[in-house]
Amino acid sequence: MANEPEPLTYRDAGVDIDAVTGALRSVGQMAKRTHTPRVLTGLGSFGALFSADFRSMEEPVLVSSTDGVGTKLMVARAAGRFDTVGADLVNHCIDDIVVMGAEPLFFLDYVAAGHFPEGRLEQIVSGFARACEEQGVALIGGETAEMPGLYAESDFDLAGFIVGVIDKKDILGPERVREGDVLLALRSSGLHTNGYSLAQKILFERAGLGVNDTLPGVEGTVADALLAVHRCYWQVLKPLIRDPDLHALAHITGGGFTDNIPRVLPEGLSVVIDRDSWQVPPLFVEMARRGPVVRDEMDRTFNMGLGMILLVSAESADRVTAALKAAGEDPVRCGRVVAGDRTVGYEGADGL
Amino acid sequence: MANEPEPLTYRDAGVDIDAVTGALRSVGQMAKRTHTPRVLTGLGSFGALFSADFRSMEEPVLVSSTDGVGTKLMVARAAGRFDTVGADLVNHCIDDIVVMGAEPLFFLDYVAAGHFPEGRLEQIVSGFARACEEQGVALIGGETAEMPGLYAESDFDLAGFIVGVIDKKDILGPERVREGDVLLALRSSGLHTNGYSLAQKILFERAGLGVNDTLPGVEGTVADALLAVHRCYWQVLKPLIRDPDLHALAHITGGGFTDNIPRVLPEGLSVVIDRDSWQVPPLFVEMARRGPVVRDEMDRTFNMGLGMILLVSAESADRVTAALKAAGEDPVRCGRVVAGDRTVGYEGADGL
Repeated sequence: MANEPEPLTYRDAGVDIDAVTGALRSVGQMAKRTHTPRVLTGLGSFGALFSADFRSMEEPVLVSSTDGVGTKLMVARAAGRFDTVGADLVNHCIDDIVVMGAEPLFFLDYVAAGHFPEGRLEQIVSGFARACEEQGVALIGGETAEMPGLYAESDFDLAGFIVGVIDKKDILGPERVREGDVLLALRSSGLHTNGYSLAQKILFERAGLGVNDTLPGVEGTVADALLAVHRCYWQVLKPLIRDPDLHALAHITGGGFTDNIPRVLPEGLSVVIDRDSWQVPPLFVEMARRGPVVRDEMDRTFNMGLGMILLVSAESADRVTAALKAAGEDPVRCGRVVAGDRTVGYEGADGL
Repeated sequence: MANEPEPLTYRDAGVDIDAVTGALRSVGQMAKRTHTPRVLTGLGSFGALFSADFRSMEEPVLVSSTDGVGTKLMVARAAGRFDTVGADLVNHCIDDIVVMGAEPLFFLDYVAAGHFPEGRLEQIVSGFARACEEQGVALIGGETAEMPGLYAESDFDLAGFIVGVIDKKDILGPERVREGDVLLALRSSGLHTNGYSLAQKILFERAGLGVNDTLPGVEGTVADALLAVHRCYWQVLKPLIRDPDLHALAHITGGGFTDNIPRVLPEGLSVVIDRDSWQVPPLFVEMARRGPVVRDEMDRTFNMGLGMILLVSAESADRVTAALKAAGEDPVRCGRVVAGDRTVGYEGADGL
């Protein structure tokens, strides 16, 4: 019996339920601040409850989406800044359902890591909670997994899940788009959540920069520029979303203009984007130069300073532009819908 | 100009959009088979659409949950078997909302990896699709991220999100539970999706076993036993879920009996579990012996052969047991509700 090994506990396997439970308690407090009267349970029960009273709608439809932050997380880790990536994810998810015309309702998060150093989980979740609160979306659930062995000690990943609602007759999309429609673009805050593998290859590998270096014309450090939070367009789009002259919205995510705009084009229509219509922000110009990366590849990878495209009727373009300006936006009339086979063409100078 | 480096593309950064797009096409086909008439879009649009026509309910409530597979993924990787973990996740998520009495409606998945070798993504998603199809749940969306640099080449992770619906008056839970209620348990298929960090430490590190070894009394290899798919209890519970004698359901996940049963106990009530009421399956007995792990720690970590607990009125226990047996189950009357402060007590022999 003297040779009997010490009995094992779950904690010996690297999982300290009590430590995670402590962090989850403060995370629960943050989430609670986002809870509207429609949230019917707290985070403790097996599933989260949200009222589905959609009686004011004729044919309510749930709109859902899931996403991750991608390799932007590597920049966060390199910069030691963990309180913004949660907001990136919330905003990205909201934008993905707002483009269909939906009102975002609630969000759930998944956070996994090899190990959460003290305070790390709280930092990450504070990003989720802050963005949800800003946008009036309830953070109603989440899963936190500490998985030594599956993730390296400092590795982590996030996934987000959003649900919204729309009356079927109000769904935006391809069937509303007409030849001659005008493309109005809203500015992005930076790279948003896509193209980070290429951006890091350019800036860190080829250009040899560090997160604390600077780039000509770019405010703050490389970390500041790369970690700028993905813009949420919900507040500015909310007053326009039922405007009959707004035909479709394209969220410029992975694949850039080239891959995202065709998602809202019907058979027989294409768009032409005028590269002379806006000035590409210095961050993108610097990346193109230091790659180098040719313009077509840039447009297929990054948002180039324009994170959301509105497709509106030609006759409403001036009115919608004025409304956007009144809301503090600086919209760009960046292109038009033409006959074609669901592609994105470009005109104007290279501009890089 | 001769010294100008070769222009970079997104592909050079390790991301091959076209290869992933090809895999996503066949994944889309699998998902399509799960689509009921309530699914209003395919996977192409920014958000997934699902009809929210709940007019037959007085106060419809959405029930949602998110989860991961945890370190069971390490066993899948070691065994080179990737087509079951998706089913684990779907079934786990369904069980988590069915315990509140909800009907599961749709599921979204998140799959991330350093790199997907050819066919890998299809294998993973086939698990999601198969389980969704079996349970009548629509797989309506997902996100796939290939992230070299964030995940090591062979590392991967999955997260799942489920949404279901219930009429508010039908929600199961603590407020229905009464002193004297009987605990009826349904058998698990194995470890389900929890305790894998400890299980691997015991079997692979302490006992020095490999995935292809065998254990006394355990069918198949260690890999077979550890990768047994998490049972989905939805089909067997469906006919009982509106039975007024069914007061609550507890899904035995991470934290075992000890942490999960109190989630459905009101103030002033506890449960006592009779360890003599069922025979712990050999897989758990072997782990306890080879750890060694004491019984209390086992009960706080693993499901011990019982994956779902029904709390029913004492007078209905025989009737519900008969109904479960008629449905092919082998239920265990494993305990009772007593006065107390929301804890789980144990009686009977250690049994290991």
